[in-house]
Amino acid sequence: MLDALISADILRTGIEAILTLVPEARFRILEEGVVSRAVDPANVAMVSVELKKDAFDSFSATEAEVGVDVNRLYDILKMARKEDEVELVIDEGSNTLKVQFSGLRYTYTLIDPSAIRKEPKVPNLELPARITMKTDDFKKAILAGEKISDHVVLKTDENNFYIEAEGDTDQIVFSLTKAELVDFVPETARSMFSLDYLKEFVKPISRSEFVTIHLGTDYPARFEFTIADGRVKVEYLLAPRIESE
Amino acid sequence: MLDALISADILRTGIEAILTLVPEARFRILEEGVVSRAVDPANVAMVSVELKKDAFDSFSATEAEVGVDVNRLYDILKMARKEDEVELVIDEGSNTLKVQFSGLRYTYTLIDPSAIRKEPKVPNLELPARITMKTDDFKKAILAGEKISDHVVLKTDENNFYIEAEGDTDQIVFSLTKAELVDFVPETARSMFSLDYLKEFVKPISRSEFVTIHLGTDYPARFEFTIADGRVKVEYLLAPRIESE
Amino acid sequence: MLDALISADILRTGIEAILTLVPEARFRILEEGVVSRAVDPANVAMVSVELKKDAFDSFSATEAEVGVDVNRLYDILKMARKEDEVELVIDEGSNTLKVQFSGLRYTYTLIDPSAIRKEPKVPNLELPARITMKTDDFKKAILAGEKISDHVVLKTDENNFYIEAEGDTDQIVFSLTKAELVDFVPETARSMFSLDYLKEFVKPISRSEFVTIHLGTDYPARFEFTIADGRVKVEYLLAPRIESE
Repeated sequence: MLDALISADILRTGIEAILTLVPEARFRILEEGVVSRAVDPANVAMVSVELKKDAFDSFSATEAEVGVDVNRLYDILKMARKEDEVELVIDEGSNTLKVQFSGLRYTYTLIDPSAIRKEPKVPNLELPARITMKTDDFKKAILAGEKISDHVVLKTDENNFYIEAEGDTDQIVFSLTKAELVDFVPETARSMFSLDYLKEFVKPISRSEFVTIHLGTDYPARFEFTIADGRVKVEYLLAPRIESE
Repeated sequence: MLDALISADILRTGIEAILTLVPEARFRILEEGVVSRAVDPANVAMVSVELKKDAFDSFSATEAEVGVDVNRLYDILKMARKEDEVELVIDEGSNTLKVQFSGLRYTYTLIDPSAIRKEPKVPNLELPARITMKTDDFKKAILAGEKISDHVVLKTDENNFYIEAEGDTDQIVFSLTKAELVDFVPETARSMFSLDYLKEFVKPISRSEFVTIHLGTDYPARFEFTIADGRVKVEYLLAPRIESE
Repeated sequence: MLDALISADILRTGIEAILTLVPEARFRILEEGVVSRAVDPANVAMVSVELKKDAFDSFSATEAEVGVDVNRLYDILKMARKEDEVELVIDEGSNTLKVQFSGLRYTYTLIDPSAIRKEPKVPNLELPARITMKTDDFKKAILAGEKISDHVVLKTDENNFYIEAEGDTDQIVFSLTKAELVDFVPETARSMFSLDYLKEFVKPISRSEFVTIHLGTDYPARFEFTIADGRVKVEYLLAPRIESE
């Protein structure tokens, strides 16, 4: 039900994005590509990865749902070189995924998808502010915040986007003006998020040049990025933390 | 009382040199620059860092003494790129230090200097021998010594400088002839020092091309180096260990 | 009884190969070079290292057997740069090895060889299959196998060489066709080996471009490689694991 070729680099980024939240996930194989959505065990974050058909160098599939140990798969894919072409094969009626690249054939018994938590519904959220920034800036702000706190406030005013962290005796503010942002819909918004999650998002997000953040007030935020010229789309949805004061 | 601009690289080396001995330190802000001196808790070593006014790209100050968590400050400065320009601001009457670079503003509540150990007096020592060597050589000798012992002997004779370590069944001697040294005042001297301290000195010393060692017999040694074309001066004073035989 | 010059790189690889199995070893100094053979404490693997006279830049020796703490010697040699020339001196009647490079003189008290396990006899084995492959391929297969198992099967058929690992729910096969191998004597052979050993062999083997494997069925295998244009010869002999089914 699947016979596909994809660059190691692209596949790895998709798998890595899921792995930030769960070690096992359901994948839906569709005629137009492969989709996976998962929620972390604490119900704080959701990830959605779409590998469109044209993200593959060749793609032939019939509809199916399979369960994958993404942890193990990622471990194997780490061995591929960036330029390696990976072949993915799931035979009709078989219960195994074959992964092949540069002389290695990895055969993996799939997990019964019913043993994995159901795919979440993506909530329909009204998030007024939208910020598109360089992923380098995002990374810098998150890593700086982590030095002094376990959470950050993301907020906007008319002209700026701020990432703020508060320590016991110190504070870090990373700010970008409208001009320093790639794109900005400056509705007022302010929400607080756990750095435990955001720092995990940094690695896959860094594979892209830009990240777009949709932000409300005391509301979940959505982080979107694409790789491979938009053919792979990744979204994180992250619940806010309640501010104690 | 302070508004200054300095390259991240220069500031970081100064902070790093202090951090090898203490996690918190007093800084004296003077019209001609910033000075910090500290002694480690075991009273074995002293560090003195002078950032002269012209080490800064701009410098405006009135005299003051402030207490700084150098550990935390260093952690933040590690995030700056070498070429980043760091702005340091302490407002009159305020109790905070603002550190800004590339979009990040870090605001830090200063420590009451009276809560930090007093600045030591620099003893006036007669140290007859003087050795100037490449920091690469110094590093190599210290790291080699560390493989087999926890202390080294630094000694001179008429024509050579030696760094010697003694293990249970082995011995390492690193020797440089007069010709291999950058500069040499070859008075006879011989003292033993703890590698626990010397290996900590190696990292900041490596920022400079050369290090000058002033040496006596069973006496403290002074290690001097400069960075930024002499505009930052760092000195370590290290007490000798008593040789057991 | 020894006064020799050798490149740091060559000496280090020889020492490293021994260190994968034992921390101390006997070395036989001969007029035509230096030889060391050792068996690991579990009697599973044997290593043989031959540094021929012409692997040295200068070599003058009389016959002797010495005991060396290879762990400590390797630690010191790690400090040398690749291009450093290392001088090795054992004076007649003395009990020390002097190792000198770039200003460092390391003097080491030799171990009484009788305190170290006797040099093993090399068994005469009939191993029908012979596979010569790139060490990069060998490394890739071993590291992949390690992801899912603690042992691998090495086997041949008429046209291919396989390295296979079996996990609980997955399997990895690395295969090379006759054409992808450097050289191949395709007698049928199949034996299973512990990855604990093979992964240790990977590091020294990687210093060479090629490795030759001699293989039988449920029999020990021999791994041979050379460095420095054949002037240093290393052999590992590894006992098979018994397959449980």
